[in-house]
Amino acid sequence: MPQYVAPLTDIQFILHDWLELDKHYASLGMADFDKELVNEVLAQGGKFAEQVIAPLNREGDEQSCTLADGKVTTPDGFAQAYQEYIVNGWNAMLGSAEYDGQDLPYSMAVPVHEMLNSANVSWRLISMLTESAVLAVSKHADEQLKQTYLAKLISGEWTGTMCLTEPHAGTDLALLSSKAEPNDDGTYQITGSKIFISGGDQDWTDNIVHMVLARLPDAPAGVKGISLFLVPKFIPDNQGNPGQANSLSVGSLEKKMGLKGCPTCVMNFDGATGYLVGAPHTGLACMFTMMNDARFQVGLQGLGLAEAAYQGALSYARERLQSRAPQGAQQPDSKADPILHQPDVRRMLLTQKALTEGCRALAYLYATQMDIEKYADDEADKGKAGQVLAFLTPICKAFMTDMGQESGQHGVQVFGGHGYIREWGMEQLIRDSRISQLYEGTNGIQAADLISRKLARDSDSMLAATTEVFQAHIARIADTQQQAKAQALLDEWHDLSVQLRGLSAVDLAGAANDYLAYSAYMLLGVLWLSMADRASSSETASLAQGKAKTCAFYLKRLLPRAATHKAALLEGAEDLVALADDEFDYQ
Amino acid sequence: MPQYVAPLTDIQFILHDWLELDKHYASLGMADFDKELVNEVLAQGGKFAEQVIAPLNREGDEQSCTLADGKVTTPDGFAQAYQEYIVNGWNAMLGSAEYDGQDLPYSMAVPVHEMLNSANVSWRLISMLTESAVLAVSKHADEQLKQTYLAKLISGEWTGTMCLTEPHAGTDLALLSSKAEPNDDGTYQITGSKIFISGGDQDWTDNIVHMVLARLPDAPAGVKGISLFLVPKFIPDNQGNPGQANSLSVGSLEKKMGLKGCPTCVMNFDGATGYLVGAPHTGLACMFTMMNDARFQVGLQGLGLAEAAYQGALSYARERLQSRAPQGAQQPDSKADPILHQPDVRRMLLTQKALTEGCRALAYLYATQMDIEKYADDEADKGKAGQVLAFLTPICKAFMTDMGQESGQHGVQVFGGHGYIREWGMEQLIRDSRISQLYEGTNGIQAADLISRKLARDSDSMLAATTEVFQAHIARIADTQQQAKAQALLDEWHDLSVQLRGLSAVDLAGAANDYLAYSAYMLLGVLWLSMADRASSSETASLAQGKAKTCAFYLKRLLPRAATHKAALLEGAEDLVALADDEFDYQ
Repeated sequence: MPQYVAPLTDIQFILHDWLELDKHYASLGMADFDKELVNEVLAQGGKFAEQVIAPLNREGDEQSCTLADGKVTTPDGFAQAYQEYIVNGWNAMLGSAEYDGQDLPYSMAVPVHEMLNSANVSWRLISMLTESAVLAVSKHADEQLKQTYLAKLISGEWTGTMCLTEPHAGTDLALLSSKAEPNDDGTYQITGSKIFISGGDQDWTDNIVHMVLARLPDAPAGVKGISLFLVPKFIPDNQGNPGQANSLSVGSLEKKMGLKGCPTCVMNFDGATGYLVGAPHTGLACMFTMMNDARFQVGLQGLGLAEAAYQGALSYARERLQSRAPQGAQQPDSKADPILHQPDVRRMLLTQKALTEGCRALAYLYATQMDIEKYADDEADKGKAGQVLAFLTPICKAFMTDMGQESGQHGVQVFGGHGYIREWGMEQLIRDSRISQLYEGTNGIQAADLISRKLARDSDSMLAATTEVFQAHIARIADTQQQAKAQALLDEWHDLSVQLRGLSAVDLAGAANDYLAYSAYMLLGVLWLSMADRASSSETASLAQGKAKTCAFYLKRLLPRAATHKAALLEGAEDLVALADDEFDYQ
Repeated sequence: MPQYVAPLTDIQFILHDWLELDKHYASLGMADFDKELVNEVLAQGGKFAEQVIAPLNREGDEQSCTLADGKVTTPDGFAQAYQEYIVNGWNAMLGSAEYDGQDLPYSMAVPVHEMLNSANVSWRLISMLTESAVLAVSKHADEQLKQTYLAKLISGEWTGTMCLTEPHAGTDLALLSSKAEPNDDGTYQITGSKIFISGGDQDWTDNIVHMVLARLPDAPAGVKGISLFLVPKFIPDNQGNPGQANSLSVGSLEKKMGLKGCPTCVMNFDGATGYLVGAPHTGLACMFTMMNDARFQVGLQGLGLAEAAYQGALSYARERLQSRAPQGAQQPDSKADPILHQPDVRRMLLTQKALTEGCRALAYLYATQMDIEKYADDEADKGKAGQVLAFLTPICKAFMTDMGQESGQHGVQVFGGHGYIREWGMEQLIRDSRISQLYEGTNGIQAADLISRKLARDSDSMLAATTEVFQAHIARIADTQQQAKAQALLDEWHDLSVQLRGLSAVDLAGAANDYLAYSAYMLLGVLWLSMADRASSSETASLAQGKAKTCAFYLKRLLPRAATHKAALLEGAEDLVALADDEFDYQ
């Protein structure tokens, strides 16, 4: 399996040259985070990804997790790597200093998270969900819960989970039936069965904090009757140490397509002691604090796996000698040329590269907006950043995971038959990335969220704020011809977006998937033109050339996909709803 | 896992109503194959697929194959199912009556093969390769080899393999180094190692016939120095029964992404006795007799798996209750509606349906051309059919397998998180179909074959013959508006094809993948318009409606993909070859 190498040159270009982190941090009063510090964190994070967790990835897939006597065992080395991770403070990057966190900006942490995903996404998932749990507890829990749990979740001494899905309630949380009965002491007894719980149990830490959706006895039906509870595996004693075992257990481990190094559990809560987080019946809103974070982070999994597949395919294409290139012999002393020189192999590699680097630009742009939302002094700036994030979250989640899958598919294809053999590690990337298109809301749900909630039902503030961010990048493009191209893309996208608002609910639902993909390809076009322009003044010649040529490739060969999606957008969903049941299969 | 149901209504519509098998058989002097007989074969074949091999598919994936003491064991039930298959004559469908075959037309056998692939592609692969071996022996071997091997291969008493690939020689067979040293008795000693040998060993039959490419001592370098040898596992004795064990062995079994029910072997030949098939140094041409057949058959795997994924997704969408449909409550007495009514789920289902039924039309059209090539009296008709097959083979192989993968992806997505769990059987379809895009020549190799050998370097006979076949279908369209649409598609495709001939070798290589996909979407558009028109007079109302609406969906939502591919076609490969090595990753 090709060795993962942290793509620091591109990461640093995007952060420093393109996003101008120095100005960004100065505007947030965070000038302490200078280029040197950022690069040191990136280098150390990259080293951890390359040297500690990447080597565990292939074997983790073969070994998988096991459940015996109610306890989960993760693959060899996973627990030790996690110890190293938390001891060195990586888990605390984003945590509040009030609870011993480091309060690093997102724009520093997100690139590290990307690298963890490239190296070993199964290993990474548990700490990712812990970060999401930290957000929910920080924002919604009372002071006592914060004092008991936050510092331990931030350090990583304990991990967190999200317990939403039930067998009959996935997309439609209104159907969930887990119950919470109040005890006399203000706690609750939680009863119900939850499925697809990543890290529901593990052998890494001495406690686990489950964030569980359930219904109070007096709850209204539907999503307005759901509350959020914190349910620890072991109930902390007076010193805050894990005490009595709670009434919960792992029912079974799911056998999955991939992500095998991460234990996906059926969790049974049998009158387990739980603590209400937030007000009664506001659980869905509280959970969305976690969920929105997790959705972006799942998008980052797509980016990480897209990069891993690109690296694997590129290194194989450089080594594999088969046939002569049609341009003429490239390695005349060998019996054949590296397949890197075959135009069709380059088409696949450049597709991976253009999508990966484009998604990286989008993800890091998103991270700077998270910085602004969290750290800006001006409330208006905070609010506007929140609008941008709301609009871009479903795009990041769905598009970046779809591209992770696509890059994995190209990676396998470049390897030919060897791509199908497990020891080469390429097919694992397809299997590991496939879940990212499904969990935290399927990509279809993301598309529905974007077109309904973020576009049609919004008063325009989200679309306007998002357009403004991209407009600012266009304004900086020096080459006027390229600038005009970018402007045309943004204008067309914005106008079509506005037009779509007039569609009926059914037509919006029918257009959702195509609108998300159309938006992503158009916006990535703007980002590519902006990046290539900025790279032209880079001191790294290969980067200046590589960005310019990849941008040209993107515009010529990938951007036309936007037109395919556009073709379906305005004509409505009539063709989709037209078929009667028996017209699907003539039975 | 959803139960596979043979899609007989659609198969019969395509064969009888659309392709008019009765007229087709009459024109070939085969009027004995009447509708009743065809339908009886289809029904029995469907029953075998549904009841005998489909139930083995899920468990076969979990159990996989094992190698112990040099012998392969296939999953439980596979060997017994094979006995039932050959006892009932299914293996002999296409074999020559001279060797106890049934001489059935391809247009009867191909739909049965499709159903076998839907039900259990791992199980099907070995008998598929045996059919390819039969072709090579029939066409190229001497009389003695035919007498010894043909009847047993046709009945299925023995199975066949294709031994081409070596670790350093996959796409580029010029690099292969296996050797054949002549013995005094006219036989040869074959020495070398071959990889990716499907069915290299099995526990189904008492002998296996390997078709092996190797070099004679005096062979010229490159592909012009390759010869084909028949190498039995056991050398037949004077009665033709398996005798002395040959000097060959299974080195190991590959651990793969999927197709786990089929043993993929590393085969070591250590001076094994082999028999020359065809003239010395003509092995590649002989192997292409097998390979062209196998390429179409691999395309059929794509079709079969596309259908299986569609069926699985459709039945789940009918049962799974989540949320209300935006059109309004569809099942008001339930807490939620079946997701079948969600427009975005319908988009996925209709994509699967339109691609599957479109590919089925293409595959069965291809089968009728195979009938003509084999059975027509007129040599000119035979020749012309051969030209059509040559042109369509790479399209069938690459496009139908890409669509098999795409349908599998949609199938998993419709299932949401459950699609990722092995017991539901949907993720297996992605894993099982992924190999079809790689073996028998990667889909990139198919695209290169199409644009270079079949389009650019041909004198026009292949393009002309293919165009004529589609033109004939357009001529029958009754609705003149629909007819004009189909004509426009065919004309645009034909004109662009002719234009592409002027490109350089490098530009052709760069355009290959897009040209194949463009061609497939345009030609499928013609087929859909033709099918929908024909279905409008069907007595089955659901079919008439279903075809018309699916055609409309195809034209609106899938045909625009052709434009995406077209956009890249004529501009050349400059953007692909432009990048220097270090511009790929800035290292």
